[in-house]
Amino acid sequence: MKIIIVGSGFGGLACAKALGGSSHQVLVIDKNNHNLFQPLLYQVATGALSPADIAEPIRRVLKRYANVSVVMAEVDRIDTTAQQVFSTDGGQYPYDVLVLATGSRYSYFGHDDWAQYATGLKTIENARLIRSRLLSAFERAEKSRAPDEQRRLMTTVVIGGGPTGVEMAGAIAELGRWTLEGEFRNIDPKSARVLLVEGGERILPQFPQELADYAQRELQRLGVELLVRHGVTQIDAQGVTIGSEHIGAGTIVWGAGVSATPVAQWLGMEADRTGRIAVGPDMSVPGLPGVYALGDIAAFMQDGKPLPGLAQVAKQQGRHLGRALRSAAGPGDTLPPFRFHDRGNTAVIGRHAAVFDFGRYHMKGGLAWLLWAVVHVYLLVNAEKRALVSLQWLWRYISKARGVRLIP
Amino acid sequence: MKIIIVGSGFGGLACAKALGGSSHQVLVIDKNNHNLFQPLLYQVATGALSPADIAEPIRRVLKRYANVSVVMAEVDRIDTTAQQVFSTDGGQYPYDVLVLATGSRYSYFGHDDWAQYATGLKTIENARLIRSRLLSAFERAEKSRAPDEQRRLMTTVVIGGGPTGVEMAGAIAELGRWTLEGEFRNIDPKSARVLLVEGGERILPQFPQELADYAQRELQRLGVELLVRHGVTQIDAQGVTIGSEHIGAGTIVWGAGVSATPVAQWLGMEADRTGRIAVGPDMSVPGLPGVYALGDIAAFMQDGKPLPGLAQVAKQQGRHLGRALRSAAGPGDTLPPFRFHDRGNTAVIGRHAAVFDFGRYHMKGGLAWLLWAVVHVYLLVNAEKRALVSLQWLWRYISKARGVRLIP
Repeated sequence: MKIIIVGSGFGGLACAKALGGSSHQVLVIDKNNHNLFQPLLYQVATGALSPADIAEPIRRVLKRYANVSVVMAEVDRIDTTAQQVFSTDGGQYPYDVLVLATGSRYSYFGHDDWAQYATGLKTIENARLIRSRLLSAFERAEKSRAPDEQRRLMTTVVIGGGPTGVEMAGAIAELGRWTLEGEFRNIDPKSARVLLVEGGERILPQFPQELADYAQRELQRLGVELLVRHGVTQIDAQGVTIGSEHIGAGTIVWGAGVSATPVAQWLGMEADRTGRIAVGPDMSVPGLPGVYALGDIAAFMQDGKPLPGLAQVAKQQGRHLGRALRSAAGPGDTLPPFRFHDRGNTAVIGRHAAVFDFGRYHMKGGLAWLLWAVVHVYLLVNAEKRALVSLQWLWRYISKARGVRLIP
Repeated sequence: MKIIIVGSGFGGLACAKALGGSSHQVLVIDKNNHNLFQPLLYQVATGALSPADIAEPIRRVLKRYANVSVVMAEVDRIDTTAQQVFSTDGGQYPYDVLVLATGSRYSYFGHDDWAQYATGLKTIENARLIRSRLLSAFERAEKSRAPDEQRRLMTTVVIGGGPTGVEMAGAIAELGRWTLEGEFRNIDPKSARVLLVEGGERILPQFPQELADYAQRELQRLGVELLVRHGVTQIDAQGVTIGSEHIGAGTIVWGAGVSATPVAQWLGMEADRTGRIAVGPDMSVPGLPGVYALGDIAAFMQDGKPLPGLAQVAKQQGRHLGRALRSAAGPGDTLPPFRFHDRGNTAVIGRHAAVFDFGRYHMKGGLAWLLWAVVHVYLLVNAEKRALVSLQWLWRYISKARGVRLIP
């Protein structure tokens, strides 16, 4: 069969690998040339790692599978009747089986103009932009002679109290507190403010209350100001309005809402509130035989609830679907149902502080932090990346320096 | 005294360090926030190193000197009567002594429109752009079904046979020959063409004939086609015209001509053919007491010839001037004359192939290549960079992979 996989994040790549060496002809389409290890993207945004440390060319990962080819192209539309994928550069790719795994992007709740001021954290470009804004804000504050403007520039607002928001707030606080200390003559980087704004009842809503409380205490110890149950009403070039209060900010990071990439639109289907499409137990898209969706774009129901948009969900789904398709008789076959096995959920706050939720068992503090580091190094794509990241982490642990402070 | 240093390349940074801890008030002005180790920039352009591996924040390097401050700003003009430097963002900086060390940029011999097609290699942005164009050309060739267009995309033209051109041509040849091998299904990266075009009599004109001959043989062994005594007459989006022959190219790299940054214009002075200003034996600018120029912007005469635009010249000049100013009684003092000591000149062609010119003694081959690597690792700014670069070089030596293949 001709199998097309659109997207090579955790899900798409796992699916392609599982199909490597099979009798099928597999084509991976992605608009980027690299697979990105998103869990460490916040470290690129805060100058701790280089983009390449967490990005690997897709074709290098899949090189050894002669039956898998890769094309760098952006999908424009899909003709499910003629079974063709069309790319924006005029490419046309026929398929027997189509696997959609294009992931999610940030959603600004209908305020698309906020995107230019409050950058999300999904791509290398996003991370470079946040890094550049953060470092430039300190540079501009050093040059300014107006205390109000200095204060504004040295204030960072992080919107959204999920793992990305918590990790960004912690890392930015450490940047001002430790990394930049002593390098300026007109400002004190230690006096930089970091605000974490969350509209819901508490930060880390996906985690048990006990771990969220711990994360909150650790963030406050780093000097992060928490504003929970506070909604953002306006964002502009000067800052953020929360309720009726305007907070001037030099850098604004958006980690609040995500929605699926426009797969529903491509297929001409209904999507749920966050843009996801409903899929069957084998990830098949109802009414479109041979079409599958997984990861953040799929509303996969398990025990009456949709699975969360996590890397491990997409990865397990991709591997399962790839293996199932390997031995499928033909397109449109009913495949064995998928079941997600929770490997635990984690977030890191800063030095010596992380949380792990393994369901029955919880973990926090220095040991959780060490485990977090070991697990994330292990999950990197190859030995070179593991060595590079370990080396930089070790160096940062000793020196509190961040080696990648480039503008832009 | 208030000393302003404009530019923090090899010369400016050496001058600032030599003035660190002195009784003078030193201000370093640079439009970038980082000092760049330019000799390895070609490795960033060819995906072998990350930008941060060869770039270090200026303020981090100078952090320990309480009398030195740093400002990230672009110089707009200089008022030598009022002794003030004005920046494009409205900043105004008074000085008693002014040290100009802004370096050189690429010159297109009056064809400024060529710059958009043929990128020079002076900044991180330049290197990212070349890397992106190189890798994108292979991606587009893989998608193309027209053999002519595939051939064009897989052709790279490097213009200029100096060290930068030679190093780029060698690294790009290795990229196609080894790094990308086996990753494509419709093209064979090994069939990629690399042309090195030099208008003069031979490549590496700064080196002895014997070493240039060796470099030529090594380049040809890597498959690089050499076109010496060939002038470029036209460059456009499709390729390069050499004489009357048009050569289609997917990527064009410019390493042909440099000219000084517009310091002469700032000072309202005459410049030589390549934009440099004449300086006295102590690097002072005639007629402007307290103003000094060094590195690529200065035509410093030694033994009847101007010193070449080399990193080691700028570095020695900066250190000398900083030390001299340290003990100067006042601005405009005559300082001890500078004399350049040649530490040897080097260029690397590829794996196991480099040349060293120590004046009386020449070196080439595997040992020169090893020495080149050791010297360049040693010259990096700190132990972290040294470890990171060594690790990546070792990995590349074993695997022939290049770890930083990001678009863009």
